[in-house]
Formats: sequence, C-alpha cells, structure tokens
Amino acid sequence: MRGGFIGTGIMGGHMVRRLSEAGFDMAAWNRSPEKTAPLKDLGIEVASSAVAAATAKDFVICMLSSGPVCDEVLLGEGGVIDVMQTGSTLIVMSSIPVETARKQAEICREKGIYYIDAPVSGGEKGAREGTLAIMAGGEADDVAAMQRVFAAMGRLTPVGPVGSGQLAKLANQMIVASSICTVAEALLLAERGGADPGRVREALLGGFADSTILRQHGLRMVTNDFVPGGPARYQLKDTNTALSLAAGLGLQLPIAIGADRLFAAMVENGDGDLDHSAVIEELRRMNA
Amino acid sequence: MRGGFIGTGIMGGHMVRRLSEAGFDMAAWNRSPEKTAPLKDLGIEVASSAVAAATAKDFVICMLSSGPVCDEVLLGEGGVIDVMQTGSTLIVMSSIPVETARKQAEICREKGIYYIDAPVSGGEKGAREGTLAIMAGGEADDVAAMQRVFAAMGRLTPVGPVGSGQLAKLANQMIVASSICTVAEALLLAERGGADPGRVREALLGGFADSTILRQHGLRMVTNDFVPGGPARYQLKDTNTALSLAAGLGLQLPIAIGADRLFAAMVENGDGDLDHSAVIEELRRMNA
Repeated sequence: MRGGFIGTGIMGGHMVRRLSEAGFDMAAWNRSPEKTAPLKDLGIEVASSAVAAATAKDFVICMLSSGPVCDEVLLGEGGVIDVMQTGSTLIVMSSIPVETARKQAEICREKGIYYIDAPVSGGEKGAREGTLAIMAGGEADDVAAMQRVFAAMGRLTPVGPVGSGQLAKLANQMIVASSICTVAEALLLAERGGADPGRVREALLGGFADSTILRQHGLRMVTNDFVPGGPARYQLKDTNTALSLAAGLGLQLPIAIGADRLFAAMVENGDGDLDHSAVIEELRRMNA
Repeated sequence: MRGGFIGTGIMGGHMVRRLSEAGFDMAAWNRSPEKTAPLKDLGIEVASSAVAAATAKDFVICMLSSGPVCDEVLLGEGGVIDVMQTGSTLIVMSSIPVETARKQAEICREKGIYYIDAPVSGGEKGAREGTLAIMAGGEADDVAAMQRVFAAMGRLTPVGPVGSGQLAKLANQMIVASSICTVAEALLLAERGGADPGRVREALLGGFADSTILRQHGLRMVTNDFVPGGPARYQLKDTNTALSLAAGLGLQLPIAIGADRLFAAMVENGDGDLDHSAVIEELRRMNA
C-alpha cells in the first residue's frame, strides 16, 4: 500500500519510519524541510508539498500540531482532501477538537474518502518503539481496513464512531491532570503532617493508589525534578478543551474543574514551562 | 518471640495465623469469641481478655476497628498498656487518627514501651496471603526490631516518625477517592460525547492514565458492578478524616474537597452501601 505522511515532527518522524520499515511505500512532507532530510536516507520519498505527499495514495496520515493547522492543510484551498482519491483513507492522528474531527469526516464522506480520527498517547518513546496507544474513532470497517497500518505504530483500540478517538484522548488527559493533582495533594499532606513523602510514595506502590502517575510524576515530586516532560501549559490546554466539551454537553465535572484551576494558577504564576508534576509547587504556594 | 494479638476480625484472623505459622508464639483475643475459636486448632492460645493476651509478651499487635476502640482497650482502666512489660513493643495496625497514634505513643514512652503505628492496605486477600502493604511510623530502630514480625504479614515500608503510618494510609485513601472520581468523570465524558466507555477504558491501559483504579474500579463502572468492595460511606469517612487533618495543618486540598463532596452527595442520596466506584452514578444524577 502507498501512504502519505503529513507532519514529521518529533513523533511523526518515527511513525513514518516505522511504516516504511513495515513495508508501506511512504511519501512524507513537513513544513520545515530540515526534519524530512534524514527520512530520504531511509528510502522514504520526501514530497515538496502536503498535496504532493497525498496524491495517488491509499491512505494519508496527518500528524500536524493542532486542529486549525490540520484544517488549513487538509481543507484549505488546494488542500490535501482535494487530491485524495475516492476510496482512500484519511487518518488524522493529531489531537484536535472532537467537533473538528466530525466536520473533517463529513467533508471526506462527501468526497468518498474514509475518515478515522486516531490520536495517540505514549510520546516520542512510544513513537520510536512502535508502542503508541492508538485510540481510533471511525466506522468499524474503515478502522479494520487500516489495522496493519496502525500495527506498525502501536496498539490500536477502536473506541467508537468518528470523534471517539479524540474523546478517548481527552479522557486520558483529564485522568492524567487530576491524578497528578491528587498525588501532589496526598504527598503534601504526608509531608506537612511530618512523614517522609518519598517513603510514603514507596509504601503506596502495589496498592489501590498505585498508578503510572504515582510512579513517574510522584517520583518527580519527591525528587523536585520538574524539567519537562509534559509542560504544565499543555496540560492546561487539555483540561480547557475537555471542560469546553463538557460544557457543550451540559456536563459538570468538579474534579476536572479543580485540576484545571490548579494548572491555570500554575501557568499564571509563571510555571507553565515546568513539568506538570510541579503542580505540587503550586499547592505549596497556595498553602504557604 | 512471644506476641499478643488483639482484634482477630476479617483481617486480624489471617494476620495472627501467619505470625503463628512464621514461628511466633501467639496469644489472641477478640471481643466476639466465636472469631477466635478456629485459631485454637492452629495452635494459637486464645486469651480470655485483651490484658491476658498482652501479658508477658515481647510485642502486642492491636487490630481493632477504630481509634476510640483502640484507646479504650489499650489505655482504659486496666488496659493493655498497664500490663505490657518495659522494653516490649506495641504495634497498632488499625487505621486511627494521626493524633490518636501520637498520644498513644507518648503514653507508651512514659512506660518504657516502644510504639509503632502500622496501618495496612490490601484487604482480606492481602492479609490471607501475607502481602499487605504495611506503612510503619516509629523510630527507625523500633521498626527494625520488628522487621521479622512485619515480614510475616506483608511488605514493610517505614515512612517516618510515629503518626507517619497513619499519614501514609490517609494519603493512600485520598488518592483512591480522587482517582475513582476522575476516572468516573472521564468515562462519563467519553460516554456522553458518543464514544464507547468500555473501549475507552481499554485504550487507556498501559498509558499515563493507567492505574489500579482504572483497571479495577473503571471496569466496575463500565459493567455497572457496584456490589462492594469498598462501600462509599467508608470512603467518605476517609476523605473526612483526611480533610480534618488537612484543616488542622492549614492545608487547602481542592481535589480532595471535590471528591469528598461527591461521596457525601452519594451517601446522602442513599448509595452509601454501594461500592465507591458507583460515584459515576452520582455524577450521572448531577448531570441528568
């Protein structure tokens, strides 16, 4: 199968390499061309434009940085969708608003193009090693047809109709945000009460309070290691997106609101570039 | 070594059995004597009173149900502490308020008795299999001297001076409470947005949002299995205790407050006997 890959940044570069290694005939495009140079040596065609990368392909993957950027490249005048063939599949793996995904899918449907929203979790490491968690929204048949494509990049879980991939990603980010906050609160309570927070964290491993966040972000908190990682301002963007969506659905989510406020305060106080686990510093400030 | 064990309920019965199997010469007492009957067959001496169980022992373990009950049996007139020998160790493994543990330790100190607060996590299964997470507060030497005793029951983590064990347990309960709430919020958002919450939960396993709560309580939420487990009213008692302690320390913990309110509403609405994972039903009610 022939594939086009649009957006070969920190993660996209690894993803297209893995697709090529898995035997797909890939063409890639990136806005800043220096990121595509190393791909040429791997036998990947470097296209001169997004449209060139997408022309005459069985599938096109979009891994650009945001909803508006995706819209511009995919739907803008002379955009990617215009050159995609009937019966091919557009896979948007960027994290974009649910509504944006649904609109893109609608436009694709009119042109006879299959559409899947499939955001990922797992970061650069997951992209490099092909162990990304891929949350796919789309018709079951459309997703099934792309199974081998996804398998080259990570572990696929179909989660429902178009937009569901983005919903799953938001659910992921909400849990991450709130869990970091609660681990910070618990370790701070232990510390202020006179216990050793590092030992408390250790004591909790393996029990009901155990989590990836307690292991990784909890360790950052007790060793004051706040080099990102995941900067707090990105975390705030995620909780904002989740809460706007919730508001649109008439949903009140009190824990997510609490987490959003903590990250907002952190960013306001100038710590937006620290790792999100530094929210424990914000709690310390609040409780100085 | 000779040990006394006070409170052989659901967990205590397994704990004293494991101590006996590990070679400690044990005497046990329980308020309702029918619970001690099976212990006799295991070669454990069944004492006629708490004081009898505690007399002439190297260590005494207290696994009664609450702070006031512990105080009554340990410190009351003709209480256990009165008969304990100088140089012996009192280990309180019940979950009790931090301040109660500190007061008990102070009284012990005056009598030349070592004191350790060592609450546990892991439930009946952990007690039966000897895999309890044991969070021990006390002087390092005092805890070290009891290492073999703890090893018979589970995994020991010393977490600081007296009271720290209880702090660690509260940290554990706070994380559990808030994590259940955030997983419920995330799955509800996914569901209301049109995704399949069961598939979303699966998609998140292995990523940053992964946790014991997502695995166990998340599964209960997507299968509507709310038979306890951990009843919501106990969860509320824990968040209340944590928040009173926080208030006493002048600490504001917004996420814990949000979780406490959700469990309070759940109990008020008559769902206090359901498993704490049924908090997703409370969120549904709030957002009906």
